[in-house]
Amino acid sequence: MRISQLSAESGVPIPTIKYYLREGILPPGEQTSATRAEYGQAHLRRLRLIRALLEVGRLSVAAIGKILEAVDDESLSMHAMLGTAHYALSPAVEPHEDSPAWTEAYELVNQLIDEFGWEITPDAPAREELAHTLLTLRQLGAEPTLADLVPYATAAQTLVQTHEIHKIPLDAPRESAVEALVIGTVMYGRVLDAIRLLAEESVSARTLAGRPVTGS
Amino acid sequence: MRISQLSAESGVPIPTIKYYLREGILPPGEQTSATRAEYGQAHLRRLRLIRALLEVGRLSVAAIGKILEAVDDESLSMHAMLGTAHYALSPAVEPHEDSPAWTEAYELVNQLIDEFGWEITPDAPAREELAHTLLTLRQLGAEPTLADLVPYATAAQTLVQTHEIHKIPLDAPRESAVEALVIGTVMYGRVLDAIRLLAEESVSARTLAGRPVTGS
Repeated sequence: MRISQLSAESGVPIPTIKYYLREGILPPGEQTSATRAEYGQAHLRRLRLIRALLEVGRLSVAAIGKILEAVDDESLSMHAMLGTAHYALSPAVEPHEDSPAWTEAYELVNQLIDEFGWEITPDAPAREELAHTLLTLRQLGAEPTLADLVPYATAAQTLVQTHEIHKIPLDAPRESAVEALVIGTVMYGRVLDAIRLLAEESVSARTLAGRPVTGS
Repeated sequence: MRISQLSAESGVPIPTIKYYLREGILPPGEQTSATRAEYGQAHLRRLRLIRALLEVGRLSVAAIGKILEAVDDESLSMHAMLGTAHYALSPAVEPHEDSPAWTEAYELVNQLIDEFGWEITPDAPAREELAHTLLTLRQLGAEPTLADLVPYATAAQTLVQTHEIHKIPLDAPRESAVEALVIGTVMYGRVLDAIRLLAEESVSARTLAGRPVTGS
């Protein structure tokens, strides 16, 4: 199909498609003349994935570029591909001074990982992100402990192990499998966020709605 | 204390503090002369909360402004305050045409809410956000069903009901209670996101690491 039809089928405006082509996140079409290129179903599929990562995943074009590069790199194992996607998903955490408070927060993350016997590379970005969040909680006057984190880790492990990993079609062609992995990581993260807000609203309606407007 | 000391104690540069004052997210100090204002512990505490919402919560200054307005509005009940915070937390979802696919996604969200007997206002932004994510999953070729969502709702309900709501010091002064509510909503959302990525990495290490680089 021509770019105009790709635009009509995907709902993505032509200038936006051209921008994705320039940024290299959408592979070029097959050049049929100096001014014409043909696009296929793979382009349509890739466009849908890009829009999903942008709109629902709220990722930047740069982060999407890194993820799709890993998706397309056939020398990467599925696990290595996931690692690259995790890097792109995690916000850069500013380097911390080696303060005692930072060390303590980082140590708490290590304890959690040990407690569950998880296999995590030393430089996994989620380690730093979690430590940074715990340090911030402490600065806000909360004192997160291992016992506070265990229920989150239990819930996350159950969801990933029992409900997410089996959705990856491991016997499908690599492209489908890695796409499913990225979709699962990003989209089900958003599903969980939104559902947690719903649960919170309902628990709040029952617990807090009758509370007076001021405390003591 | 003077603004210079507030900057030193909080680690926030003076021009940034002035910016927060101009934006109205930090209340003004007590004017002691034409050119001097005095700041107190409440300012230090508010600055820490702003930095946490910015850096860990990744919220915009505009969203933080809306949340803090609700925090400071003593006429709002705790539950109403939480509702305002949820609005500020949820990204604006573009209005959808009344397509059959959108209606179906929205209906699935209603089914989930019914299944759990949750009390959710009709215009809760998390409803639209979840429906939008489900619609996007469908466009990507996944077919999310009620059974796919139930484990997420079960996990979220347990976390909120058993582990989060009791952290709110309901008998403390309103200010502490609403702050704890905002901190719980935003910070423990990030804790859950980061822990889910850790669980995913570990499950992937055990399930996928040995997989060949290509499928069929």
